[in-house]
Amino acid sequence: MRQGFFITVEGGEGAGKTSAIGVIIDQAAEHGYEVVSTREPGGIPIAEHIRAVILDKSHTAMDARTEALLYAAARRQHLTEKVIPALQAGKVVICDRFIDSSLAYQGYARGLGIDDVLAINRFAIGEWMPDLTLFMDVSPETGLARIHADQGREINRLDLESMSFHHKVREGYLQLLERFPDRMIRLDAEQELDAVHRELKQIVNQYLPRRV
Amino acid sequence: MRQGFFITVEGGEGAGKTSAIGVIIDQAAEHGYEVVSTREPGGIPIAEHIRAVILDKSHTAMDARTEALLYAAARRQHLTEKVIPALQAGKVVICDRFIDSSLAYQGYARGLGIDDVLAINRFAIGEWMPDLTLFMDVSPETGLARIHADQGREINRLDLESMSFHHKVREGYLQLLERFPDRMIRLDAEQELDAVHRELKQIVNQYLPRRV
Ligand SMILES: Nc1ncnc2c1ncn2[C@@H]1O[C@H](COP(=O)(O)OP(=O)(O)OP(=O)(O)O)[C@@H](O)[C@H]1O
Ligand SMILES: Nc1ncnc2c1ncn2[C@@H]1O[C@H](COP(=O)(O)OP(=O)(O)OP(=O)(O)O)[C@@H](O)[C@H]1O
Ligand SMILES: [Mg+2]
Ligand SMILES: [Mg+2]
Repeated sequence: MRQGFFITVEGGEGAGKTSAIGVIIDQAAEHGYEVVSTREPGGIPIAEHIRAVILDKSHTAMDARTEALLYAAARRQHLTEKVIPALQAGKVVICDRFIDSSLAYQGYARGLGIDDVLAINRFAIGEWMPDLTLFMDVSPETGLARIHADQGREINRLDLESMSFHHKVREGYLQLLERFPDRMIRLDAEQELDAVHRELKQIVNQYLPRRV
Repeated sequence: MRQGFFITVEGGEGAGKTSAIGVIIDQAAEHGYEVVSTREPGGIPIAEHIRAVILDKSHTAMDARTEALLYAAARRQHLTEKVIPALQAGKVVICDRFIDSSLAYQGYARGLGIDDVLAINRFAIGEWMPDLTLFMDVSPETGLARIHADQGREINRLDLESMSFHHKVREGYLQLLERFPDRMIRLDAEQELDAVHRELKQIVNQYLPRRV
């Protein structure tokens, strides 16, 4: 039985996902929920091992479909061991990136097809789709500029992708927004931090069932 | 472009799959084909690493869907690196177990559902379905008796499953036979070895396009 509430936060590089999660945690706590904040692979040994296979630098022959299946496998394990038990205990679970990242990045931007990547992820997720997905929408130019200004954050493989790739990721998210209007909400993350956080609070207040 | 011919051999424990492959290799060679005989993960490092995650004894929390996704991932990589190049070079590829093992064991016998396991495997395989699948049909009693009589073969985790599990695997294969009549052929593997091998030769002669 589902009792908790499952929130995922999505968006391109530097959109403000990680900063947003702090705000959501506070807001959910005000609603009387216990909150679990996580991201894949989330310290789940099996999921960590799968992630290690994906990231292994010697695996240059890794096929894009193999990679998509491995992400789905790691997602499944993280979901079963960490997310589902918390939801069943009535908690709010906030996950930094989830299924929509696979759909936008691998399904759309890498060209595997949103439908096909959705199919394997539905197998992985079953009934446990997010109740609410916040899409932090920012132009790739703004997002990457934020990341480069952020001293604490290392530049990773994805940040170094071409500008056209980042634009495709954004297009992919915009398609998902049309496809999943019931659970997905776009937030204008181009705004300054205060405005973004005010809007975030409103959204959480509106969508999270009241407990207290 | 597909030029070669892709044969898979399926069946329960001790059905005679591995012995059958020797006969098929000879027969395909007589037809003027170069032959590649393989089984997953087939010495492909990425697929071997994925298999190691599946078989890791410390992974007692492994979810059945995670496992199915990992098998599909290893299958994809073995297919791309080994099977497809050989087929594209016009060879006959013979694979000891392939997609139907996942469908019969995990889809049917473990109860994940043939349709759902098929969906993730279609993602993994794409257009590269086997041209011909030989289902070596034997009663679990006979198959397991053969294995126990075979000094050279270690008893593995699957052999030790309950009798009712082995019967379910067979039922699963019989369902697949109805579902994929165009590519799947049942061979009565209860017969003695000579009779099985004679029938095998006939089947290969009938289905493998002549080259010489
Ligand atoms: N609306 C905003 N205006 C200005 N700066 C912002 C805004 N949102 C986030 N930042 C800053 O941009 C940087 C990246 O933010 P954050 O780490 O939250 O993004 P992210 O989407 O989690 O990125 P990543 O791709 O690294 O996960 C941080 O230094 C953060 O303080
Ligand atoms: N038709 C048959 N009649 C009698 N013995 C057989 C027959 N087919 C195979 N055997 C013997 O049974 C044993 C198992 O055969 P084999 O290894 O070919 O089966 P398999 O389907 O590959 O089994 P595994 O599940 O181990 O992969 C071997 O000792 C083999 O010689
Ligand atoms: Mg982040
Ligand atoms: Mg064998």
